Amino acid sequence: MTSPSFPSTPLLDQIESPDDLKKLSREQLPALSQELRDEIVRVCSQGGLHLASSLGAVEIITALHYVLDSPRDRILFDVGHQAYAHKILTGRRSLMPTIKKEGGLSGFTKVSESPHDAITVGHASTSLANALGMAMARDAQGQNYHVAAVIGDGSLTGGMALAALNTIGDLQRKMLIVLNDNEMSISENVGALNKFMRGLQVQKWFQEGEGAGKKAVEAVSKPLANFMSRAKSSTRHFFDPASVNPFAAMGIRYVGPVDGHNVQELVWLMERLIDLDGPTILHVVTKKGKGLAYAEADPIYWHGPAKFDPATGEFKPSSAYSWSAAFGDAVTELARRDPRTFVITPAMREGSGLVGYSRAHPHRYLDVGIAEEVAVTTAAGMALQGMRPIVAIYSSFLQRAYDQVLHDVAIENLNVTFCLDRAGVVGADGATHNGVFDLSYLRSIPNLHIGLPKDAAELRGMLKWAQEHDGPYAIRYPRGNTEKVEADTWPALKWGTWERLKDGDDVVILAGGKALEYAEKAAWDLPNVGVVNARFVKPLDEAMLREVAQKARAIITVEDNTVLGGFGSAVLESLNRMELRPTVRVLGIPDEFQEHASVESVHARSGISAGAIRTVLAELGVDVPLEV
Amino acid sequence: MTSPSFPSTPLLDQIESPDDLKKLSREQLPALSQELRDEIVRVCSQGGLHLASSLGAVEIITALHYVLDSPRDRILFDVGHQAYAHKILTGRRSLMPTIKKEGGLSGFTKVSESPHDAITVGHASTSLANALGMAMARDAQGQNYHVAAVIGDGSLTGGMALAALNTIGDLQRKMLIVLNDNEMSISENVGALNKFMRGLQVQKWFQEGEGAGKKAVEAVSKPLANFMSRAKSSTRHFFDPASVNPFAAMGIRYVGPVDGHNVQELVWLMERLIDLDGPTILHVVTKKGKGLAYAEADPIYWHGPAKFDPATGEFKPSSAYSWSAAFGDAVTELARRDPRTFVITPAMREGSGLVGYSRAHPHRYLDVGIAEEVAVTTAAGMALQGMRPIVAIYSSFLQRAYDQVLHDVAIENLNVTFCLDRAGVVGADGATHNGVFDLSYLRSIPNLHIGLPKDAAELRGMLKWAQEHDGPYAIRYPRGNTEKVEADTWPALKWGTWERLKDGDDVVILAGGKALEYAEKAAWDLPNVGVVNARFVKPLDEAMLREVAQKARAIITVEDNTVLGGFGSAVLESLNRMELRPTVRVLGIPDEFQEHASVESVHARSGISAGAIRTVLAELGVDVPLEV
Repeated sequence: MTSPSFPSTPLLDQIESPDDLKKLSREQLPALSQELRDEIVRVCSQGGLHLASSLGAVEIITALHYVLDSPRDRILFDVGHQAYAHKILTGRRSLMPTIKKEGGLSGFTKVSESPHDAITVGHASTSLANALGMAMARDAQGQNYHVAAVIGDGSLTGGMALAALNTIGDLQRKMLIVLNDNEMSISENVGALNKFMRGLQVQKWFQEGEGAGKKAVEAVSKPLANFMSRAKSSTRHFFDPASVNPFAAMGIRYVGPVDGHNVQELVWLMERLIDLDGPTILHVVTKKGKGLAYAEADPIYWHGPAKFDPATGEFKPSSAYSWSAAFGDAVTELARRDPRTFVITPAMREGSGLVGYSRAHPHRYLDVGIAEEVAVTTAAGMALQGMRPIVAIYSSFLQRAYDQVLHDVAIENLNVTFCLDRAGVVGADGATHNGVFDLSYLRSIPNLHIGLPKDAAELRGMLKWAQEHDGPYAIRYPRGNTEKVEADTWPALKWGTWERLKDGDDVVILAGGKALEYAEKAAWDLPNVGVVNARFVKPLDEAMLREVAQKARAIITVEDNTVLGGFGSAVLESLNRMELRPTVRVLGIPDEFQEHASVESVHARSGISAGAIRTVLAELGVDVPLEV
Repeated sequence: MTSPSFPSTPLLDQIESPDDLKKLSREQLPALSQELRDEIVRVCSQGGLHLASSLGAVEIITALHYVLDSPRDRILFDVGHQAYAHKILTGRRSLMPTIKKEGGLSGFTKVSESPHDAITVGHASTSLANALGMAMARDAQGQNYHVAAVIGDGSLTGGMALAALNTIGDLQRKMLIVLNDNEMSISENVGALNKFMRGLQVQKWFQEGEGAGKKAVEAVSKPLANFMSRAKSSTRHFFDPASVNPFAAMGIRYVGPVDGHNVQELVWLMERLIDLDGPTILHVVTKKGKGLAYAEADPIYWHGPAKFDPATGEFKPSSAYSWSAAFGDAVTELARRDPRTFVITPAMREGSGLVGYSRAHPHRYLDVGIAEEVAVTTAAGMALQGMRPIVAIYSSFLQRAYDQVLHDVAIENLNVTFCLDRAGVVGADGATHNGVFDLSYLRSIPNLHIGLPKDAAELRGMLKWAQEHDGPYAIRYPRGNTEKVEADTWPALKWGTWERLKDGDDVVILAGGKALEYAEKAAWDLPNVGVVNARFVKPLDEAMLREVAQKARAIITVEDNTVLGGFGSAVLESLNRMELRPTVRVLGIPDEFQEHASVESVHARSGISAGAIRTVLAELGVDVPLEV
């Protein structure tokens, strides 16, 4: 690939802050939008960034900053991955090449990064409750700034977004909600609201002339106090789809849908809507990947593409075999053997490696959208009726369904398996996405079994065990790659048994999953240091732990999880119950949120690299000849 | 109070199972409903039971069991506290006096209790996702049983219920959803959907004669595939409020509202609706406390009344001062001193002691309905704008918002205080409601501070500290009573410092909150046994812990929380870091779900009573003269 020559950006070059943006005329905004788009493509061509959604939101963001006065006015971005234009317009253009890199800009909005970032975010569906809180704080303080939230139709399928809408409609605080409807979450969108929105036709408020537009805005500007009477009457308002609209039925003024790439129309509308009392939804229709032909054609791939040539869209397909692919292959084969297998994903078909599965077993596959709570409890219902559902979910997103795991699955000891992808440090996505709490929050739930496979074969062994034994199981594996295994490999293993990988009785390292790689690398040349594949965190292999603790002078536990309440704590609890007291060193993620950086870098600074383990070994008096 | 003479129950006396119910004629069903009501009042007059909601659901339950074939057909009750009539009709009548007592019936539905109980439940809003899972399992297995869920309008404000509706509308699996609309959650209901429902007028399908009824059912029986076209057209269907209805807009056939106490009409409708393809909502309007004048008049009190005289409604008001009242008084005074205080509750105004607060500070009070996720993230939004919100929530219900605490509050170190009522074992409500996981799931979240006051004064000290210092705080206190303190008592304390309550250096007991009572009772007469008020679990008072561990031969930790990952584990982690190795005995709730029984009984069988602590002291070689 050759480095492309990028178009010049004369308008963008003048903008250091939203104040500079306001010096442009409205007629210049379409040209500015194109420059922003060029800039985003240039930044994203380095790979690993949120391209398609950022291209889709350019005009929405430009219009919001043109009309509003950030940071006094608060602009909230749901998920925050579509806000690249916002970062560029708020003084961070020169830092964009650092995005998602260690010490650089976050891939999402982040309060500590800029006063213009209203919320720190990464998980979906939080913007509306945050916006409601801000509007209530504003009113309680007697202030009068504006609150505007941008939320995608995908995020709107999240329960907390829907519940927040219900409260927003009730309380009638002034705010603008821009519903950025690109017909996608990350995969294709699902849900009945989505179908409803597909049935609406884009309306042209602005282009049809001031007359029609004025009439329309006047119609929706009326107080909403009597919206209930509209629901009962049989009269329908011109340009006001209130009576056919679930948002309006919840008491929220609804305007749209409008073309989300017509920046002048957006400005015209926002200027009129922003000062209306009560909550307003402006429904705008956008295209993910807008303006980049290859991204428009395949927005799922271009959601977060690898490094590419911006001129042609050419990229080098990855040949690595990911943990997600290993899971997808395993479960596709498993479902062929077992008619009780049913896989559920909350909007992560691609991310969880389920494209092949969804094609092979379409009738035993369910995407509930971004609604982790529903994913888990739907699985509970299936298990109650004799199925063996598997919930494929990222570790960090299962946090959303902690209570459902406990209350709906674990109390009744149901046969649900949770496959936690992206467990441990995820790196570039940072603090919001690190899956470094699951061992702690899952371990204290009764009945739940927890395993950490070291490779694809062990993942298969654990999956098969879980499908064949009663009770809930959680299997966690990291972001990254593993070795491919042959089809229909189903290694036998017994849940709860560890595996001694390297002999050595003076100091023994206990580690599972990703951490095991570091342990093996740290100990390979040290004759008296043992390594155990502690692949089960619940239950622990207490027989092997006792044997190790009775002989070893010291034990080192290593985990890709917080040191509070995780694997190391489980070992301390067990040793204490056994009244064995070897020296124990607990290595893991410290009790702080970890900012974005490469996985290896976060591990190294957390002290769970091979080098860090060797340092601990040396401190324990082991003769460590040289650095690895 | 004298024991009342109850009416006879000739119809109910014939019913041992739903099969017996089906032998009655439809004309006998109103009389049966009255007998069920009498029976429920008799059972509930013993106190502590869910009276008002159970009275409201009598006809719905009778009609469902008359029309459906349980347990083959699945009948799901959201929350499960309204299902007393269901228990009586499914062979558990003679056991009703044991309800919520140790070894007796659960206060909710429970799969292990009866094949007729489709789900094990206690938390709200789970029935719809469970029902969807069951319908999908049925279809995947090629079976054809019916799935019916009963959900209250209060439960419907929960995000996971709304998100499940969105998926149900999309997938179009056959199921019947009975929306039991009693205009209440436990407090008055909130939310825009609730307002919407209040605007609908009850329709009489059945009484208007077969003609009108038939026409109506025919109208809604049409396939829904084309519901989108309805939304776009301007024609409205007779008797079909689809086009003005948020449920219909989500693709769910909507029928209602109808009178939920007309059992014959309910049977007539359910017979016709149950075989329709796709999902159907039958919206029925009921009255909490129906048929009992005093309960109808004040359904909030009669939600779960104390022991009463069923003839007169006479009861003895409690004179005890609850922890909830202590919190309510404290926060009411605090808000007078600090304009940044704002209290948020998820539908627990009465339970959390906030009636007085909500009257004293109506503009700094928010009830978001049963939507814990929204409660927490709305607080985050307020904190971002300079307020000091306090989320008043039951420990068990905060499980619903684990991710929001972590992602929306803790990452940005926001000034939100969580006041966790009903922390620890709650007793009669059982496994679903025990708050015995919070120390474990909260402790591993960075930035969060955790305190356990021993009395109302310490609660005030902690609240005031939290309002005056930055960062998120969690303060947990048990169900039950405490000593009242004078208004404007604000004891000074420093967060993170323990308190030595009793000298003694041989064995030292570390305990906080409710567990401290047992520790003091166990040690009062033992000169060499010390007691420390370990009132902070995060951070621990490591200075005092070190001092204790350096002198003591043994440490006993006692907590009203699971032994996995909680306070005892925190102590083990700290001691391990300090390289101190006294004998440690960790007492707490074992790693099993605890069935309902009195709090004291669960504590005793868990080994955290005063007696159990003395047994451990004796095992450790302390001279324990006699049992307490």
